[in-house]
Amino acid sequence: MTNKHSLHVVALAGGVGGAKLAHGLSQTLIPGRLTVIVNSGDDFEHLGLKICPDLDTVCYTLAGIANPTTGWGRWDESWNAMESLERLGGPAWFRLGDRDLGTHLERTRLLSKGWTLSQVTDEFRRAWKIEQTIIPVTDDFVPTMVNTDMGILPFQEYFVKQQCRPVVTGFRFNNVDYSNPAPGVVDAIQKAELVVICPSNPWVSIDPILAIPGVRMEVLSNACPVIAVSPIIGGRAVKGPAAKMYLEMGFKPSALSVAEHYGVRIIDGILSGFVMDNKDKKMSMEIQKMGLQTLVTKTLMKTNDDRKQLAQEVLEFGKELIKKN
Amino acid sequence: MTNKHSLHVVALAGGVGGAKLAHGLSQTLIPGRLTVIVNSGDDFEHLGLKICPDLDTVCYTLAGIANPTTGWGRWDESWNAMESLERLGGPAWFRLGDRDLGTHLERTRLLSKGWTLSQVTDEFRRAWKIEQTIIPVTDDFVPTMVNTDMGILPFQEYFVKQQCRPVVTGFRFNNVDYSNPAPGVVDAIQKAELVVICPSNPWVSIDPILAIPGVRMEVLSNACPVIAVSPIIGGRAVKGPAAKMYLEMGFKPSALSVAEHYGVRIIDGILSGFVMDNKDKKMSMEIQKMGLQTLVTKTLMKTNDDRKQLAQEVLEFGKELIKKN
Repeated sequence: MTNKHSLHVVALAGGVGGAKLAHGLSQTLIPGRLTVIVNSGDDFEHLGLKICPDLDTVCYTLAGIANPTTGWGRWDESWNAMESLERLGGPAWFRLGDRDLGTHLERTRLLSKGWTLSQVTDEFRRAWKIEQTIIPVTDDFVPTMVNTDMGILPFQEYFVKQQCRPVVTGFRFNNVDYSNPAPGVVDAIQKAELVVICPSNPWVSIDPILAIPGVRMEVLSNACPVIAVSPIIGGRAVKGPAAKMYLEMGFKPSALSVAEHYGVRIIDGILSGFVMDNKDKKMSMEIQKMGLQTLVTKTLMKTNDDRKQLAQEVLEFGKELIKKN
Repeated sequence: MTNKHSLHVVALAGGVGGAKLAHGLSQTLIPGRLTVIVNSGDDFEHLGLKICPDLDTVCYTLAGIANPTTGWGRWDESWNAMESLERLGGPAWFRLGDRDLGTHLERTRLLSKGWTLSQVTDEFRRAWKIEQTIIPVTDDFVPTMVNTDMGILPFQEYFVKQQCRPVVTGFRFNNVDYSNPAPGVVDAIQKAELVVICPSNPWVSIDPILAIPGVRMEVLSNACPVIAVSPIIGGRAVKGPAAKMYLEMGFKPSALSVAEHYGVRIIDGILSGFVMDNKDKKMSMEIQKMGLQTLVTKTLMKTNDDRKQLAQEVLEFGKELIKKN
């Protein structure tokens, strides 16, 4: 492994895929140089508890306490509370592990005392000995709603309860116009020398981040390169409903569609560079024609070495773009 | 084992000791003939959850899912949520097991939907396949406050956080004057052919039951025998601070003090019979002189057979008193 990079980097991330690359970046950047801005559109209240799936996945992953098999939830988890609740007829559609419950209980307790979500997150990442910064994009409640052929569903009802079966016709981020970026978000973007959009679902992980008033604008007013890593490989999402969503929204699921989704900075989008998998090499020319620099490499992250390797390459790619700037 | 009894019995119970005799009674009476009226003065809110320690101990015990070693909490319990919360700096002084948490989460959820505590309890005991009736004495919040040399402490702060160290000077049942017995409590007492006061702490388990307006009155207006089983054996409480409380309140901790605590029905008390341990045989004459019938036997319940045996003897004793009535 070469020396760690000292670049100031902002990563925008959703859950599992985003967390993996964020973890890679956290290991290839010196402490304090990475700020992970996390989607909070999936957050919801369940059993009286405030649940923040993406935030917890990012924190658990960077802390090294995530479940390596599922990518979400905790390592060495038990499910006794859920089992006990289920026997009493309680709602068990959203599976909360016992260790995970400890997080939700303490977060809910602190929120009810008046802490903000970003304060709680900072407290937790310190307790978990995470040396990089993690911020929920907003402290406000901006729940993602999914318009479907079954009506408008709160994200977790669509995602977990209905297991992404309903056909998607659109998305709404409730309350977004009245929301503000959490403290630290704007600062981090202004200070960034590179912005990385992690391989998360563009529709429901990254769009809700960019939709918070000011966030997209701050990214655009910083002249630094913005690189997205495609979550679609060979026309399929590594995980989750991204490909299905593209199809239902009228687009072919592909790396190209992801590049078009974010758009090219000099036109009306946000990107300057795009990272895509070797499998999609054929598309690279077309994406370059859009006006984007491309990096074609292995983007599937199965091991921790994969995470570090991809992070390393993304950072090198970013440095090239900085030079060309 | 002889045939099960068909007597209508009401048992007043607190936590561990009370639950053991209630369990014995539930096994020696035919289903539907026992109503356990449980102290709710220990109930409190913690981590946003409604916790009912005595109610849960009674339910877990009658369901056969209690921890046989501690007498409280769940069998085959894990502690991962607490461990996780503690790592985040959360309050871990009140230890909640994972399976136990499932109970509190579902109870809190139902209460927040408008269910009453007694409705929730009835739902739970059905799910746990308990064939006898269990009712919290009240659906109102009547928390036991302990007056001590450290000031007035909510019960669980005295009992768990301070581990009963403060010197007790008195007790208060907050809000008791404005409280009502839960539905079913008055009916059960009116229908009872025998009332059994279980070997629970008289100060903080049984007094809070009898203090709910109407409960003591209903017991007194029913002509049936009322039998108490002493929780003090050989001057010591089998479990908990009962002996320490008697001492600090200016009484010698003894079976006699317990008998005097409840008092004799024909004078100004509530009892007609008293059950005491063989160890306290010497005191039996004195207690009889007070005007009480006594049963001297083995009252310490170590095994389930002990529970059934004591229940059996209490029921036989009760039948004798009924005959004499």
